[in-house]
Amino acid sequence: MAELPEWAGSERLLSLYQDIQPELLRVEENLGAIGRETPDFPQELLSHAISNRGKRIRPALTVLSSKFHPNDGEMPVRMATAVEMLHVATLVHDDTVDHADVRHGMVTLSSLLGENAAVLVGDYLFAMSATWVCDTYNVRVIRRFAETIMELASGQLMERLAARDWRVTREQYWRRLYNKTASLFLTAAEAGAVLSGASEEVAQATRTYGRALGMAFQVVDDILDFEGTEEQVGKPVGNDLLQGTVTLPALMLLERYPNDNPITKLFQDVEPDGNLKRALEMIQSSSIIQDSYAVAAEFCQQAREALVPLPNNRCRRALLELTEYVTERRY
Amino acid sequence: MAELPEWAGSERLLSLYQDIQPELLRVEENLGAIGRETPDFPQELLSHAISNRGKRIRPALTVLSSKFHPNDGEMPVRMATAVEMLHVATLVHDDTVDHADVRHGMVTLSSLLGENAAVLVGDYLFAMSATWVCDTYNVRVIRRFAETIMELASGQLMERLAARDWRVTREQYWRRLYNKTASLFLTAAEAGAVLSGASEEVAQATRTYGRALGMAFQVVDDILDFEGTEEQVGKPVGNDLLQGTVTLPALMLLERYPNDNPITKLFQDVEPDGNLKRALEMIQSSSIIQDSYAVAAEFCQQAREALVPLPNNRCRRALLELTEYVTERRY
Repeated sequence: MAELPEWAGSERLLSLYQDIQPELLRVEENLGAIGRETPDFPQELLSHAISNRGKRIRPALTVLSSKFHPNDGEMPVRMATAVEMLHVATLVHDDTVDHADVRHGMVTLSSLLGENAAVLVGDYLFAMSATWVCDTYNVRVIRRFAETIMELASGQLMERLAARDWRVTREQYWRRLYNKTASLFLTAAEAGAVLSGASEEVAQATRTYGRALGMAFQVVDDILDFEGTEEQVGKPVGNDLLQGTVTLPALMLLERYPNDNPITKLFQDVEPDGNLKRALEMIQSSSIIQDSYAVAAEFCQQAREALVPLPNNRCRRALLELTEYVTERRY
Repeated sequence: MAELPEWAGSERLLSLYQDIQPELLRVEENLGAIGRETPDFPQELLSHAISNRGKRIRPALTVLSSKFHPNDGEMPVRMATAVEMLHVATLVHDDTVDHADVRHGMVTLSSLLGENAAVLVGDYLFAMSATWVCDTYNVRVIRRFAETIMELASGQLMERLAARDWRVTREQYWRRLYNKTASLFLTAAEAGAVLSGASEEVAQATRTYGRALGMAFQVVDDILDFEGTEEQVGKPVGNDLLQGTVTLPALMLLERYPNDNPITKLFQDVEPDGNLKRALEMIQSSSIIQDSYAVAAEFCQQAREALVPLPNNRCRRALLELTEYVTERRY
């Protein structure tokens, strides 16, 4: 490995990942090798997509969840590679669909290549992630992975089809969060346990944990869209509202002011600049941000409770700590 | 089934498919049921994509190839469903990438929904096709399926990256044909044999057959782009050249007139209308169309030879007949 992964630069993540560093470095190596097998495929395209390095929370979940039953680590590492590759593939397609030019401060593949080619690079990464899952030789895990891709696509599509609709219910919002984010967290965690050969009880515990952690993670993501600065989040503040997407803080504002709401006007294209500004101010100056964090904290509580049946080892403690990291992160 | 599948309206296909009608009707039922399981997902979107009915050659290949070893037909039908669903998913993404508004006389999903949503519907169909393969519980077949998706994406991407490049070699053209089309034909045929429990010899025979048939099929597709009328092909004559793609007839014209070639000028944007017209006339008035059909016929011969080791039953005869159908079809 020539280059250190992004998480190695964060003290917090280094501490969280301290017991699974060898596995995560193997995941980095697998990701770095992408495209070498297919000489036809322009290597730089894939490297660009994958080099948009992240916190690698999803593969960490797989590896941590595999540590409750003795195993040689090979299958969990393959799965962790698949999970992160799938995540990258969804980012490539999301950027295409969003017409995003920059993500986390890096130029996106779709703005570099044109949206057309980016669709195909995304497809290639989806398929390549599937070959990594196949190499776990576990049909339960493989099938769950395919279902997750369906849920990811549903979640993204639901979000687009509901664009500028201010009558979103909490029920719909939760379902979207699950599809968009929690489904893959669930799969990442459950697969680690299943591939380690752990009992069904452990698999269920990690599954419930992964789902709840994913919900909390996405709620925080949705809060940061209102709270962070453009520099921290990598996109303009209030970007979700600009795209016509109602997330938890916006939902709360709509619930509190059912009449004469700036979001309703924004979505109806009535004085959009002024109403976006007004909505942001109302959210930032009220208890909405705090109340939204309380919702994320509830999901984290659920996640921690799910871990009760697990053996109390260092990886269980890392999973507990991860629930704090998720609500405290700033990007 | 309320509606008869398209192949039931073609005497030729009805005769080719006569021994596998029950299986193909089950595939139609499976395809028709798409989306019922996921209430979140707008059913009409999926039905629209799938109702763009085709000749169902790929699922027919799977079912025919499964008839050389006794089996109850369940796994081949699941695979045949997956294979056709994957084909539809690639069409949805191709139309997005091509900005096509009409395919086979039907409005495309991307022109109906916007390209953005169509990317996600395609992803959903890719993933759903993968769940059908997973339900064969055969990891060899599942992994080959994932590789095929990679090859499909590579093929499409290669075509785009080579756009307006007149220095394409035959070698590159064959590789693109394999990735774009023959890979899925190979997978469809081989999987039928594998899932039937047939010997490795039978699997290899169907694999070689599928690959060669797919190459012939795509060569004919490429010829029809020059030969057919807009009505037959469902897109303008010479569309590939318009898109900057060099296929076999264009390759032959470039080989025969290395200097002062209208295609070179067209790709350099020199008097594009006149040079497109000139290229079409030169191809149509020379032996190029005939010579291209001779290439397709060679692949068909390879396909027929591959069938020699198979038991001489009615399904083997259907596979033989399919090689004739492929070169004689007019759309």
